[in-house]
Amino acid sequence: MQKILNVALAKRSYPITIGENLLSGFQHFKLQAGQRVLIATNETIAPLYLQTLIDMLEKHGVKTDSVVVPDGEKYKTIETWNSILTTLLANNHTRSSILIALGGGVIGDVAGFAASAYQRGIKFIQVPTTLLSQVDSSVGGKTAINHPLGKNMIGAFYQPQSVVIDLSCLKTLPQRELSAGLAEVIKYGIILDTKFFDWLEEHINDLLNLDVNALSYCIYHCCELKAQVVAADETEQNMRAILNLGHTYGHAIEAELGYGNWLHGEAVSVGMLMAAQTAKLLGKLDQTDIERIKNLLIRAKLPVNRPKKMSIESYLPHMLRDKKVLSGQLRLVVPTKIGHVEVMDGIDKSIVLESIANV
Amino acid sequence: MQKILNVALAKRSYPITIGENLLSGFQHFKLQAGQRVLIATNETIAPLYLQTLIDMLEKHGVKTDSVVVPDGEKYKTIETWNSILTTLLANNHTRSSILIALGGGVIGDVAGFAASAYQRGIKFIQVPTTLLSQVDSSVGGKTAINHPLGKNMIGAFYQPQSVVIDLSCLKTLPQRELSAGLAEVIKYGIILDTKFFDWLEEHINDLLNLDVNALSYCIYHCCELKAQVVAADETEQNMRAILNLGHTYGHAIEAELGYGNWLHGEAVSVGMLMAAQTAKLLGKLDQTDIERIKNLLIRAKLPVNRPKKMSIESYLPHMLRDKKVLSGQLRLVVPTKIGHVEVMDGIDKSIVLESIANV
Ligand SMILES: NC(=O)c1ccc[n+]([C@@H]2O[C@H](COP(=O)([O-])OP(=O)(O)OC[C@H]3O[C@@H](n4cnc5c(N)ncnc54)[C@H](O)[C@@H]3O)[C@@H](O)[C@H]2O)c1
Ligand SMILES: NC(=O)c1ccc[n+]([C@@H]2O[C@H](COP(=O)([O-])OP(=O)(O)OC[C@H]3O[C@@H](n4cnc5c(N)ncnc54)[C@H](O)[C@@H]3O)[C@@H](O)[C@H]2O)c1
Ligand SMILES: [Zn+2]
Ligand SMILES: [Zn+2]
Repeated sequence: MQKILNVALAKRSYPITIGENLLSGFQHFKLQAGQRVLIATNETIAPLYLQTLIDMLEKHGVKTDSVVVPDGEKYKTIETWNSILTTLLANNHTRSSILIALGGGVIGDVAGFAASAYQRGIKFIQVPTTLLSQVDSSVGGKTAINHPLGKNMIGAFYQPQSVVIDLSCLKTLPQRELSAGLAEVIKYGIILDTKFFDWLEEHINDLLNLDVNALSYCIYHCCELKAQVVAADETEQNMRAILNLGHTYGHAIEAELGYGNWLHGEAVSVGMLMAAQTAKLLGKLDQTDIERIKNLLIRAKLPVNRPKKMSIESYLPHMLRDKKVLSGQLRLVVPTKIGHVEVMDGIDKSIVLESIANV
Repeated sequence: MQKILNVALAKRSYPITIGENLLSGFQHFKLQAGQRVLIATNETIAPLYLQTLIDMLEKHGVKTDSVVVPDGEKYKTIETWNSILTTLLANNHTRSSILIALGGGVIGDVAGFAASAYQRGIKFIQVPTTLLSQVDSSVGGKTAINHPLGKNMIGAFYQPQSVVIDLSCLKTLPQRELSAGLAEVIKYGIILDTKFFDWLEEHINDLLNLDVNALSYCIYHCCELKAQVVAADETEQNMRAILNLGHTYGHAIEAELGYGNWLHGEAVSVGMLMAAQTAKLLGKLDQTDIERIKNLLIRAKLPVNRPKKMSIESYLPHMLRDKKVLSGQLRLVVPTKIGHVEVMDGIDKSIVLESIANV
């Protein structure tokens, strides 16, 4: 059984198809015989899924070639982005070609930015293969690469023509990566939907066990919630900021410890608890809600304590360089109860430091 | 006296201000006291105009810093683009910062693409200082960098918030560069406006002598013509292709001889004559019109013969890799009379080769 969510944004609108064994089906890709595609993927995913996808597309008359880049956040760089562009050029791809990103958020982000930039924009299909990328990068059209001076600092807003979420791919995903995805899932409950948070408390084990019905409901619902936020605010002026709950703190961890030591979702898990502490210190959140959040994160097998080798002072420079910061003022998203957040400007640095210390 | 042209595109709209000594005036920049800008320019332009601009902006309370890159088309690269992004990051510029491109088309294109990509897009002001960039890159929102495998292959569609055309800057522009700009000016006459072509035949010497009234009328009119075309077709699906008259042939010259040996406008001059030959071979253009075009180009001090060291066969591989090519089919813009062009698909290669040989 397939679920289809239509994401309607401004002039553009595209379907997200969610189901099992979608790599073996053609229709949801929205491609036509005779078209040319370049599939971008990485060294881990290529041996698992690349040939299945190529065979299916070629069977339907789509001409494919592929580029396989190294695996890891540390390769989300200008160089990897350039290598995708070079492959497009070397293989004489025109503006009618389509780029398919087959992989997690790293591949989706770097390939998406390559699609946006190649000849000033070619069509782009997302095939997210991690839970995190399925619930998060599928919607919103953010693409990016990292710079030595900051994560996701270079990129574009660029929408795919179609997103294909094959639940079967999750079977090969390492447990730690699955949990990292659950951090973003739990985030949606905290920022927007108390009932969904309740549902998660009930079904977190089903998700960990890859129960297809639970996954399908959960991913659809997360994409729907994100689509609502993004539709209200496509270029992240305001409302969309709530999706960054835990991310300003989290990015500091990722940047300081080097991308890839802590997973993004793990850093977000701890970052959400820091944001919850900030809310508590500002008198805006109860200890009971903090406990509920923390317990759910623990059950999802996520870290709930900050990395001990990182000093409290070392967070601030990273946080001040964060995109969400406006003219040097600290802007943070903080939960005020489960299912509700506020965006707060000019939070005192001492409160930020104490929030970090408390986690 | 200033002329202001309002370019109205989709959701965005911005003013192009044309006049003398605009670098010493503030209002047309559409900036406010307290804002931060990074000025991107090159080693040739910096000693001429950078301090004037900085002094004026600082006087009005705008905080400026600058990045000076090497001069030349061969530096329109990923590396130069990255160096602008690195400066933005190293100086802690936020999403509220504004990037100003002070220079010709190279600076405009690479800085524009940097503005589009920095934190997925910051505001951008164009200060074009060559005639070519004033009549061409000011309108349309194309930004780009080159790749070793092709010119302008990487970039974005990205609109400035304001364009400031200071006619006084043209006084320091080398004669050869002025003529290169006139190639694009003459192009507008050929593709769209027979009366403007007549006007040019009458006023070409005034333009070469930098007569302010002639320049002001000419630049305003060129921007207006381009704006009409672009408004009809913002992402270059169709109509906008007519602006590429002479460019498919011209890019082959630029690419084969190495960017920078032939100026863009010089290559376009010869390329337009090749396109005219193609039209003639297809029985679509009179010899009299070819003569008028050629004479005007000669009077504008532009080359009208192809580079002799480049073989006729060496054009095709470049032309087939051109962005304007659709799935391997040659697509060319050809003039059918002065003031009118057609976009033609699937032109026979032998006709292309003969067109090149005839120029
Ligand atoms: N664009 C957006 O809106 C958005 C949203 C959230 C996160 N992101 C970005 O996404 C990245 C994190 O994404 P991620 O968590 O997917 O990381 P990732 O892409 O690095 O994938 C995690 C690991 O799992 C492997 N993998 C992926 N799918 C697999 C599968 N089916 N089976 C086995 N292994 C598999 C990958 O090779 C990698 O080693 C970050 O760079 C983050 O900035 C982007
Ligand atoms: N974005 C667009 O729509 C668009 C349109 C046309 C061309 N372009 C691009 O523009 C580039 C060509 O632009 P260009 O002809 O302006 O080249 P350019 O930017 O290289 O400038 C030409 C030369 O003149 C110098 N110069 C610039 N202004 C000067 C001044 N006032 N006084 C003295 N010297 C000055 C420059 O330093 C350079 O040496 C190409 O890369 C082309 O692809 C872009
Ligand atoms: Zn995230
Ligand atoms: Zn041109």
